[in-house]
Amino acid sequence: MSMLAEKAGRNLALIREKNPLIHNITNYVVMNFTANALLSMGASPVMSHAEEEVEEMVALAGALVLNIGTLSESWIKSMVRAGGKATEIGTPIVLDPVGCGATRLRTLTARALLEQAEIAVVRGNASEVLSLKEQTPRTKGVDSVDSVDAAAPAAADLALELETTLAITGPVDLITDGSREVRIMNGHPLMGKITGTGCAATAVIAAFLTVESNPLDAAACALGFLSLAGEKAGEKADAPGSFQPAFLDALWKITPEELSTGIRLEER
Amino acid sequence: MSMLAEKAGRNLALIREKNPLIHNITNYVVMNFTANALLSMGASPVMSHAEEEVEEMVALAGALVLNIGTLSESWIKSMVRAGGKATEIGTPIVLDPVGCGATRLRTLTARALLEQAEIAVVRGNASEVLSLKEQTPRTKGVDSVDSVDAAAPAAADLALELETTLAITGPVDLITDGSREVRIMNGHPLMGKITGTGCAATAVIAAFLTVESNPLDAAACALGFLSLAGEKAGEKADAPGSFQPAFLDALWKITPEELSTGIRLEER
Amino acid sequence: MSMLAEKAGRNLALIREKNPLIHNITNYVVMNFTANALLSMGASPVMSHAEEEVEEMVALAGALVLNIGTLSESWIKSMVRAGGKATEIGTPIVLDPVGCGATRLRTLTARALLEQAEIAVVRGNASEVLSLKEQTPRTKGVDSVDSVDAAAPAAADLALELETTLAITGPVDLITDGSREVRIMNGHPLMGKITGTGCAATAVIAAFLTVESNPLDAAACALGFLSLAGEKAGEKADAPGSFQPAFLDALWKITPEELSTGIRLEER
Repeated sequence: MSMLAEKAGRNLALIREKNPLIHNITNYVVMNFTANALLSMGASPVMSHAEEEVEEMVALAGALVLNIGTLSESWIKSMVRAGGKATEIGTPIVLDPVGCGATRLRTLTARALLEQAEIAVVRGNASEVLSLKEQTPRTKGVDSVDSVDAAAPAAADLALELETTLAITGPVDLITDGSREVRIMNGHPLMGKITGTGCAATAVIAAFLTVESNPLDAAACALGFLSLAGEKAGEKADAPGSFQPAFLDALWKITPEELSTGIRLEER
Repeated sequence: MSMLAEKAGRNLALIREKNPLIHNITNYVVMNFTANALLSMGASPVMSHAEEEVEEMVALAGALVLNIGTLSESWIKSMVRAGGKATEIGTPIVLDPVGCGATRLRTLTARALLEQAEIAVVRGNASEVLSLKEQTPRTKGVDSVDSVDAAAPAAADLALELETTLAITGPVDLITDGSREVRIMNGHPLMGKITGTGCAATAVIAAFLTVESNPLDAAACALGFLSLAGEKAGEKADAPGSFQPAFLDALWKITPEELSTGIRLEER
Repeated sequence: MSMLAEKAGRNLALIREKNPLIHNITNYVVMNFTANALLSMGASPVMSHAEEEVEEMVALAGALVLNIGTLSESWIKSMVRAGGKATEIGTPIVLDPVGCGATRLRTLTARALLEQAEIAVVRGNASEVLSLKEQTPRTKGVDSVDSVDAAAPAAADLALELETTLAITGPVDLITDGSREVRIMNGHPLMGKITGTGCAATAVIAAFLTVESNPLDAAACALGFLSLAGEKAGEKADAPGSFQPAFLDALWKITPEELSTGIRLEER
């Protein structure tokens, strides 16, 4: 068992012990599923987006999720404000650039958040994450058109340029901070057939950041956990409708030991 | 097997092959379920409502859903803008006038969208759809008070007047463009006991419009598919909570052949 | 069987017969689940928050839910407006002060709603409800830090001060109007591991208020029903993902007789 696999189990146990509060400014589509994923794994979710309260709320939280899936003017302001406060007080932030590259508003907002706040981890699919660099829109809505494998070298460069950790999810998950790279081999095809598994991954990374100071390790532990849950759900369900509750059940049931032994990863 | 039943299966196969992107400006209550219904059937959902990006987003999509279930000023503006762009570039639009007739805002908004954009299909329950014509509010919230049968002649007239196709869902679904009429006999009572089956029907019609140019045929194929999924879910589940995942499972599992042979329709 | 237990069954039967419309101005996270809970139990949900229509909508409804879980400026205005109209026409209101005590905005909004509208019942966890009185924020996000038992005397005082009925949910539910107190012993730990059971409780109280004029009795019937549904779901499911549909199924399946005999309560 690798050091990282051991760490994954240990960190999961810590989260369940500490029950950290995760502040989510996220999209309407996945709010319910994100909250349920965090509850199932042992964290505590709060959703709050009013400009008047986000600074107070983030000060109570162990980590902040900024997810641009259903943007509007006032939400962008709140994300900037919450991100600023989190940066000021050292609370880790995970950015989910949903649909980045598909529209100018999304691309510009994601880039602005990266500039104005200290983002510990960016979690997206390959085209969303890589569009943080490139000018040409490459995203088809919120679904990726690039393979994770093809994205690896560009991702490493981009991580160095942005001084952050990039977590690119897909059939194989890729996590890189520019110097180290981890790939997660777990997962199940039905994960892409329910909405919100990507956004849940982002929130779960935030939960791991409350107990793990190294962003690359936190993201790898989280994606290993998520992908193993997908595998376990795939043993129970053969279609998206029943896969969703089975996935939440797996987040609840996977023990630290099962995580450490079940996670299949490659470190480079 | 009727021509239309054959077409339904063929169109379902085409959707699963092409995986069309459906742009939804829809209500908060059903966003998650709508996205999951589209994913389960083989389409790809995107939700986006910011005035700044809806024109760009709809240009990427194969069809547009405008659903007025939880309105506000800024969302109406975005619907008008997205509808205008879709009309300009020939992207089919489905309007869901949720709660039309219940409040002035909903009735006026639905009528304005019908005037300002080219709506391929309007999908609602009988009182919602018929309130597009009449002055008197007849809706009890978002649930219908009229029978589909009683609504047929008025619906045909209204379709001609509005120059669109009307899809009225209920125990028997009625689709009319004023000259042709199709009734779908499939379905299950539990479909009315979970929120969002109507809104999902609207989104599924949008998916069929990406592969079927005749709006009446597209709506009939879609409602036949939805209602057959309801029947199949009703064989697995006897209460609303377990009916919902069973319904999504059915959208995933129904084959083109099962759809063509399972759909029960009357054409007039 | 106590009088109140009998009443619970009788009121449930009445709701299923009358199918009352419940107007919800509630948070994004739980809208879908709240609508499904109301449908499953036999009521009819409508969600509407536009300032332009809330007065019209509440006039159609049998009860109003004001839930501050995801606030913003315009939603507060709509809540005030809907609350004012409901007060004027005598429609019962249930307030859910989600996260009250965690941020100034939530605490002030909840207090303002209590002042400006006639609230029949306030439903929250102990720290949310008690923060309506105290100055010091005591809430950790939306999860309670106080035990219901410790809260009882303060709750009774606060109910008298606010001239309302307080329904504090937790392992044991406490309902008090300052002179009478009811405790509900039913429930299941997994109820706290899915998002929205508390908010669903609020909506279910609203449904009972359409058939039961005594707020304390309505709240006690509703929480007994909810908690019994939790118990029944806990017999079917051992993890949060499958608990959620099982919970909705139980709301659908529990008969008036089962409710009257299954509810375990203490009156003081």
